[in-house]
Amino acid sequence: MKAEIITIGDEILSGQTLNTNAAFIGEILTKNHIDVNAAVVVGDKEEPILDAFKKAFINNDLILVTGGLGPTHDDLTLDCIVKFFNTELIKSEEVLRDIRTFFGKRNREVTPLNEAQALVPKIADVIRNHFGTAPGTWIEKDGKILVSMPGVPTEMKEMMKGYVIPRITEEKLEKKSNRIIKSLLTTGIPESYIFERLGNIHELLQGSLMAFLPSQFGVRLRITVDGDNSEEVKDKLSFIEQQIRAKVGQYIYGTDNDTLEGVVGKLLLERDLTVAIAESCTGGLISSRITNVPGSSKYFERGIIAYSNGAKVEHLKIDENMIDQYGAVSIEVARLMAEGVKAVSGTDIGISVTGILGPGGATFNKPVGLVYIGYCDQKICTAREFRFGDDRILNKDRTSQAALDMLRRNLLGIQYED
Amino acid sequence: MKAEIITIGDEILSGQTLNTNAAFIGEILTKNHIDVNAAVVVGDKEEPILDAFKKAFINNDLILVTGGLGPTHDDLTLDCIVKFFNTELIKSEEVLRDIRTFFGKRNREVTPLNEAQALVPKIADVIRNHFGTAPGTWIEKDGKILVSMPGVPTEMKEMMKGYVIPRITEEKLEKKSNRIIKSLLTTGIPESYIFERLGNIHELLQGSLMAFLPSQFGVRLRITVDGDNSEEVKDKLSFIEQQIRAKVGQYIYGTDNDTLEGVVGKLLLERDLTVAIAESCTGGLISSRITNVPGSSKYFERGIIAYSNGAKVEHLKIDENMIDQYGAVSIEVARLMAEGVKAVSGTDIGISVTGILGPGGATFNKPVGLVYIGYCDQKICTAREFRFGDDRILNKDRTSQAALDMLRRNLLGIQYED
Repeated sequence: MKAEIITIGDEILSGQTLNTNAAFIGEILTKNHIDVNAAVVVGDKEEPILDAFKKAFINNDLILVTGGLGPTHDDLTLDCIVKFFNTELIKSEEVLRDIRTFFGKRNREVTPLNEAQALVPKIADVIRNHFGTAPGTWIEKDGKILVSMPGVPTEMKEMMKGYVIPRITEEKLEKKSNRIIKSLLTTGIPESYIFERLGNIHELLQGSLMAFLPSQFGVRLRITVDGDNSEEVKDKLSFIEQQIRAKVGQYIYGTDNDTLEGVVGKLLLERDLTVAIAESCTGGLISSRITNVPGSSKYFERGIIAYSNGAKVEHLKIDENMIDQYGAVSIEVARLMAEGVKAVSGTDIGISVTGILGPGGATFNKPVGLVYIGYCDQKICTAREFRFGDDRILNKDRTSQAALDMLRRNLLGIQYED
Repeated sequence: MKAEIITIGDEILSGQTLNTNAAFIGEILTKNHIDVNAAVVVGDKEEPILDAFKKAFINNDLILVTGGLGPTHDDLTLDCIVKFFNTELIKSEEVLRDIRTFFGKRNREVTPLNEAQALVPKIADVIRNHFGTAPGTWIEKDGKILVSMPGVPTEMKEMMKGYVIPRITEEKLEKKSNRIIKSLLTTGIPESYIFERLGNIHELLQGSLMAFLPSQFGVRLRITVDGDNSEEVKDKLSFIEQQIRAKVGQYIYGTDNDTLEGVVGKLLLERDLTVAIAESCTGGLISSRITNVPGSSKYFERGIIAYSNGAKVEHLKIDENMIDQYGAVSIEVARLMAEGVKAVSGTDIGISVTGILGPGGATFNKPVGLVYIGYCDQKICTAREFRFGDDRILNKDRTSQAALDMLRRNLLGIQYED
């Protein structure tokens, strides 16, 4: 079964509203083994809407439409459906009852404009709206299905989960395929390096799919495995995952929706360890990410954002001569900052960062993108040099990710390769 | 000029990634008076990509493609362009130099896979990539333009702003209509309150458009004014803006792409004042936002993330008895934290936050969402109570925004209304 998603609305085309509806529908269809061929956005005009219907009917068995069902003049979806299927509107008594109940509950009068929403295409099955007034519709013709739903996310989601997916799953005649999608999350290694290490990718995947999805936080490896039964799919995935882990396992910090701050938080909790952080160039971002995790107060003790040298001396007890000698952005000062924040806070671990994130601040020997990250625990006290890019905000993200990854590596006893 | 946006990527179709690229492109085209006909998403497969190119060429003058330009096997856009235009790939020495510079800066070796990214369609003009390795391409055929850009948002955005829009604007032959789009950025007042204060909205706008766009940072009022000439448009906008400012001016912190951290940074610089921040519940987010602004080291001295009571006592010199008596989340402790961080850092201003952001930590008297923000300068030392929602991450954003707004109000001498 092949599907297309059509989102109707000028506000989506002009970028004022993010198309979260298409993302939700894409996700729920994919989970239910229905391939999404394309997702199309068109504005609030009759011609492009009819054109989109026509094009979608060529290649697809299922067309899911959202938006344009409201009561005002700019809502055209229903008119377009009537034209496209050459049908007419009739009043649904069931929908009219729903609308009256909806307004009654809110102590509001039902206007003629509201009652007009009980009009539905004659050939359609009604999808009742439990959170609003505009009903959805399900139309079948020539073995193909067109579903129309309101653009309000809560109303659409409830229709998808409560009506559309159950009915499709029931009606689907094809043998249900088995599919697993799993992402392995890496950081600290470029996309091209992973690709080369994995060797012959077709041999590795044997017909399964893998996408490389890079961002400033690392590369997400998204694996899609299909098969005849769930055992086969699990075995295939397990084979692929093992191969990948054998080659780049040390860079993989989590899977699917994991975050690096969540992963290190769990490791700290399991080991009953506490951490304190001294930040310079990241300005609090690392601590902010750590404290995004609910319950992080159990292991995060404090953070010192030592932007000035004075703050480094006073709160981290760093010898001012060392700063003068090596410079605030140096491997020595990074190490001292990690040591200092651990000592003053009495935690098990201290982490630090100092660097030049741009656009200003570079010197002849110290370019924009140069960062030092320090790590101290009961046994070791160390620091590493990193080179990032030119963009200040992306560099903050990259530095925070590298610092959290350094913490992860040390908690798990994973050495850096170089 | 009519445009279509094509986004390539399975991760978009399956809802794993939100299509922010299409939103950005839609917005920048609309601002530049280019109508977006449709936005289409297709997966990483040759046939649907070629099909999308074909369909887009029917109705449009400009086709903007993002995604599928990486170095790995799942990146198919370049192959599709070559097939679609019946051309071939040639090596661009310019791009090759860019790639070598990119990896050189990062102290990384250039692999053959990386060098392969210097291959571009023979008939294309190269759009250089200043933030990554895959170049963009600009192809003209039969009076129509196809632009292909990487899917990484920063890389795409820079190409749109630095190359595509300037070149289109230059090439566009049609008469340029007169349009201004301006956003007024408010914070600290709900959407419905603004709407009510503005009175009769049709009288105010007189045919111009205004959208209310709320987020956890505040409400963006986006005004679109059209007219026959630039004078008329400017006058209309100026009238509308004056009316709005007369009614809700104190809540407006900036316009268009301003950020609150940028606005307060400018105010601090102008007044030659320095600030230090003591954060508890926001975990470093306020300091991180302040240091997102280039040159912020001129006014940001340090931040203390006093998550534990120990840190509050040691670094902020708060009397432990006060914490015992009032609780760490209290208006008294907020004031003491602001006073303390100002004193220890020797800055002109101290800001502090303490609160319960959830999901845990609430008590009978102190619900989730309760936040106190403190402010001290040479003359006053004060704190205010705020009530936010249930979501931890949104609450962090809201708290950071309220704290920065308290700084803005004090710098400008604007009293709170209640």
